[in-house]
Amino acid sequence: MRVLTGIQPSGDLHIGNYFGSIKQMVEAQSQNQTFMFIANYHAMTSVSDGSRLSELTMQCATDFLALGIDPQKSVFWVQSDVKEVLELYWTLSSFTPMGLLERAHSYKDKTAKGIAANHSLFSYPVLMAADILLFNSDVVPVGKDQIQHVEIARDIAIKFNNQYGDILTVPEFRVQEEVATVPGIDGQKMSKSYKNVVNIFGEEKSQLKTIKKIVTENVAMEEPKEYETCNVYNMAKLFLEGENLKALQDRYKQGGEGHGHFKIYLAEVMWEYFKEFRERREYFEAHQDEVRDILNMGALKAKEAALPTIEKIRSATGIRY
Amino acid sequence: MRVLTGIQPSGDLHIGNYFGSIKQMVEAQSQNQTFMFIANYHAMTSVSDGSRLSELTMQCATDFLALGIDPQKSVFWVQSDVKEVLELYWTLSSFTPMGLLERAHSYKDKTAKGIAANHSLFSYPVLMAADILLFNSDVVPVGKDQIQHVEIARDIAIKFNNQYGDILTVPEFRVQEEVATVPGIDGQKMSKSYKNVVNIFGEEKSQLKTIKKIVTENVAMEEPKEYETCNVYNMAKLFLEGENLKALQDRYKQGGEGHGHFKIYLAEVMWEYFKEFRERREYFEAHQDEVRDILNMGALKAKEAALPTIEKIRSATGIRY
Repeated sequence: MRVLTGIQPSGDLHIGNYFGSIKQMVEAQSQNQTFMFIANYHAMTSVSDGSRLSELTMQCATDFLALGIDPQKSVFWVQSDVKEVLELYWTLSSFTPMGLLERAHSYKDKTAKGIAANHSLFSYPVLMAADILLFNSDVVPVGKDQIQHVEIARDIAIKFNNQYGDILTVPEFRVQEEVATVPGIDGQKMSKSYKNVVNIFGEEKSQLKTIKKIVTENVAMEEPKEYETCNVYNMAKLFLEGENLKALQDRYKQGGEGHGHFKIYLAEVMWEYFKEFRERREYFEAHQDEVRDILNMGALKAKEAALPTIEKIRSATGIRY
Repeated sequence: MRVLTGIQPSGDLHIGNYFGSIKQMVEAQSQNQTFMFIANYHAMTSVSDGSRLSELTMQCATDFLALGIDPQKSVFWVQSDVKEVLELYWTLSSFTPMGLLERAHSYKDKTAKGIAANHSLFSYPVLMAADILLFNSDVVPVGKDQIQHVEIARDIAIKFNNQYGDILTVPEFRVQEEVATVPGIDGQKMSKSYKNVVNIFGEEKSQLKTIKKIVTENVAMEEPKEYETCNVYNMAKLFLEGENLKALQDRYKQGGEGHGHFKIYLAEVMWEYFKEFRERREYFEAHQDEVRDILNMGALKAKEAALPTIEKIRSATGIRY
């Protein structure tokens, strides 16, 4: 079964990203044929600073390799390195009724928020359909807000197949249930847009500084404390299990320590938890050429996977003359 | 000065196509840097039969080479062989406000006629902008109905340059005044949609059969005849000049001959006029591999011309990472 995931290169990753989706993505690598790409063509629709986009692309590759994407197990590439996706994008456009795009929530939501109504924003679901269909993906794990886009890809694939025969695999979506809801430092769900995130990678001092800002109840040092409702505990439990988690609960119950102590402890366990990732990140950071090599190899593999489909399409549509 | 023309592969060419535009296109080859491509990606929006599209593409190439496109003077290729055009198409989409496309007459006209409102029809002007801008075209000769599309390409180019610096050449349109309005066999303007055409290439017998259908006035054989208003004369004068044209006028004035005689004469001069083209067409028809070689060479030249621009764009937008 081939599972496809597109990754938006959007800057520093936080622990909500990690426990919300990246961890599962990394773990799923051994079970499926995993195809993962950095969606830089999509990112163009929102990032108009070119040097920023190229930085984000390399940062994204570096981060995900550090966090466990394994180029031996997964096909991992940058979207723009397999240009056949744009060929399919144009081809699918003739099988995309305007109504399908006009009904897309994400376009309506974005323009309602004041984002400029450009053609790229409008036609985004067609490019996403091409991303999915080019690689004969069976399953696309998505957040709830992306279900409609996979449905659009299905509709387009069915229309195309009706005309030219069974060339495209009609994909299924799989809604990713968030395994862990990660609280931000204010107790709301962790999200960049709430400015309440704790980044995965960063200086130890600045990590601690952020963690110290976690909102906690006002309870005297010597009193016992609630851990279930404590933002510090709820973040710490992502990194702890068994004995260690039990020990932290006991410290809450005993009293005699303030939230400040728990915060320092959280910073320590988190620092320890990401140690291996951080070291791998430092390695890739210092070996960006190796990252590029990995992406190039991934692009070759992705192209190889796309070629039979795109060749069939060229013949069927008469683009091969 | 670089002049770009896109050719829709639309089947048998008629003498209205030839005298209305192809003749000037061929003659202009020595004055300008002429870039001409067969717009098969555009044709996909209306031709859904794949083998028909590939036939049309080869027929178009064969016909135009026969009619005088000279691959030594012009860059002549098939649109889909320079895939960079789709890369630019996506890139320009972020600089294409939806309003610009919503106001396009051609989309409104086509959907009003009942053509399915697909995304490819809607986004056609963006692909046309990419066609023009990829090759830094200075001038695009167009019919009046296409002026708006060049204006859209100008708007997009200006918006793109505002963001990324002077990368794209802002093109000018040049309205092609029809040098000769060619009447159809019913006296209306010759056009496939009126089913009143005389094809350039075809069997001698069937050509004569078509010409015999030309509508003429009912005047007795022995009477003198009006030539200015005669559809046969107005077609014949495309192929005649000087003494020969004068001689035909005299035959009209003298009387004693019927329109049937003039029709036979028209068929003869037309057959003679296209003799060289016909022979060249037979040659290319029998040497389709040579046609393919010419198109491949053209695609290489077109790619070479496009490369500096697309490379600049990849750097500016951050797609090069």
